Amino acid sequence: MKQATQAAVNTPTPIETLSSRLEEDMRAVNGIILKRMDSPVKLIPQLASYLIAAGGKRVRPLLTLASTAIFDGDMERSHKLAAAVEFIHTATLLHDDVVDGSTERRGQEAANLIFGNQASVLVGDFLFSRAFQLMTEDGSLEVLGILSQASAVIAQGEVLQLTTANNLGTTMDDYIEVIQSKTAALFAAACEVGPVIAGANKDQQKAMADFGMNMGIAFQIADDTLDYMAEREKLGKATGDDFREGKMTAPVLLALKQANEEELRFWQRTLGDKNQKEGDIEYACEIFAKHKIIEQCFTMAEEYRDLAIESLHKAPESSLRLNLEELSTYVITRNH
Amino acid sequence: MKQATQAAVNTPTPIETLSSRLEEDMRAVNGIILKRMDSPVKLIPQLASYLIAAGGKRVRPLLTLASTAIFDGDMERSHKLAAAVEFIHTATLLHDDVVDGSTERRGQEAANLIFGNQASVLVGDFLFSRAFQLMTEDGSLEVLGILSQASAVIAQGEVLQLTTANNLGTTMDDYIEVIQSKTAALFAAACEVGPVIAGANKDQQKAMADFGMNMGIAFQIADDTLDYMAEREKLGKATGDDFREGKMTAPVLLALKQANEEELRFWQRTLGDKNQKEGDIEYACEIFAKHKIIEQCFTMAEEYRDLAIESLHKAPESSLRLNLEELSTYVITRNH
Repeated sequence: MKQATQAAVNTPTPIETLSSRLEEDMRAVNGIILKRMDSPVKLIPQLASYLIAAGGKRVRPLLTLASTAIFDGDMERSHKLAAAVEFIHTATLLHDDVVDGSTERRGQEAANLIFGNQASVLVGDFLFSRAFQLMTEDGSLEVLGILSQASAVIAQGEVLQLTTANNLGTTMDDYIEVIQSKTAALFAAACEVGPVIAGANKDQQKAMADFGMNMGIAFQIADDTLDYMAEREKLGKATGDDFREGKMTAPVLLALKQANEEELRFWQRTLGDKNQKEGDIEYACEIFAKHKIIEQCFTMAEEYRDLAIESLHKAPESSLRLNLEELSTYVITRNH
Repeated sequence: MKQATQAAVNTPTPIETLSSRLEEDMRAVNGIILKRMDSPVKLIPQLASYLIAAGGKRVRPLLTLASTAIFDGDMERSHKLAAAVEFIHTATLLHDDVVDGSTERRGQEAANLIFGNQASVLVGDFLFSRAFQLMTEDGSLEVLGILSQASAVIAQGEVLQLTTANNLGTTMDDYIEVIQSKTAALFAAACEVGPVIAGANKDQQKAMADFGMNMGIAFQIADDTLDYMAEREKLGKATGDDFREGKMTAPVLLALKQANEEELRFWQRTLGDKNQKEGDIEYACEIFAKHKIIEQCFTMAEEYRDLAIESLHKAPESSLRLNLEELSTYVITRNH
């Protein structure tokens, strides 16, 4: 029994497999990241490294590298663009951390709590600008178009999320639009860059973009579901952050659809009227258990994962493609 | 006497002269701005227009248009790029407004007070992304390089300003670096875009960039000085914001150099130790009067203005060039 556990622990995750197969490339990407986030203004690398070094799994740059390698593209160009993708991701993380007066983030030490809102915004802007400098140096207007469009869509999705918070009239379509924009668009762009610089045809570019998009949606649905699961605490992020912030995510939207009158009143009070008290999160989880909401959410995530794999299969068959396929399942199962 | 006043009121400012000479072009720029800041997520145009419509003088897009026209460049390209410049400027304004818990902005209704920090950050990100989309559509990697570099420098300058706040060891060189980065870099880029798309030679590109840079520095020194002048209240921005925020600007740095022991203790308490009380701003102004600090600051601004004009004279002679020359004096004298 002990041996079996040991073996399970030693089985590399798809992220680890990809990282080790693309080890040289990832080292090059990390080198570019370190070099380009440096600045004579020392608070910048200090704050950036706090986030970039902080156990980041570098999933997005891995997607860019793998999608380049699958199409036999120029890996040196891919290094720079993978770094650009990671910079955009880090910038959005920093900007996500910015809060308003009364808001408090629990569980994790967000960068803004240590360095302040203003520093988080400005260092995010710096990294965002650096991303565009890297792309400009690469010189592909097509890549610039893909990533500037993705950046606009991300911001749009985050604003949409802000305006749907605490709104019980939010639909599942609204929610999918939010996560497609704020999360999946960058996954899609990261995967599209590879075939673009490799000069693959439009169908293959679209297939990889669709793969990234659907994997990103699946990932975010799973992530939003895990926010209501106790195991989540292992990750250092407190359970129920989304509940406290009134985010209208998949579990809540499904529970609202299946709610009886008492449950409706509960959601109205806690999310609609922002009137939360001790024990509310636990009661929310009870409602989820009663209606098997968690299972329904993972089924939804799996459907998007299946769409992702369907698209991926339009790319040339290779062992890297298989790794990406495993990754798309891993991102929706990793913590339970 | 009354007639003279009337005439003075009716004399157009250099900004008005440029705006009316480039009226058609500015209309095109405004059209692009309105179209590109639109989004199905309505909070975005709502918040953006709050800032963009709010009496903005559009100095930066005017610089891009004028610097294109002087070199006989393609005005249609200039429209898009002038809009991109204005978007970058608006994004930095929105991000500037983001505050930390305890900070409060007086006098003006900053966007973040109405819409919240998070919305300000995200809409700023959206406009910033749109700027890069416009540049990508234009297709000049040289322009993309100039404006992505300027964006990184702006963020760097703002972070430097953050780290020098309340630091009495800040030097005049530090200060010049801050304003060169946070303000003048975008003026420089706005002026450089014109000769670049017009295919002017490198010397002329550099001359226009230097013109913008020195005018930007002159403008910011004057602006920082006006912050301590009573007349400033006419503009709707309360006098002494910089003092409250502990910004180490030109008047303070000059006063520190010329301070006696009592004055040093005053600056240490109010700016170094952030211990301010009623009447402190008035006392700061008394110190400035005693040492003729305001005059010294405007002399500094004039020196940079002279450098700006010297560079400008390397551009082909034209009446638009004369308007820009007048503008460089106007931006340091407008409010007193």
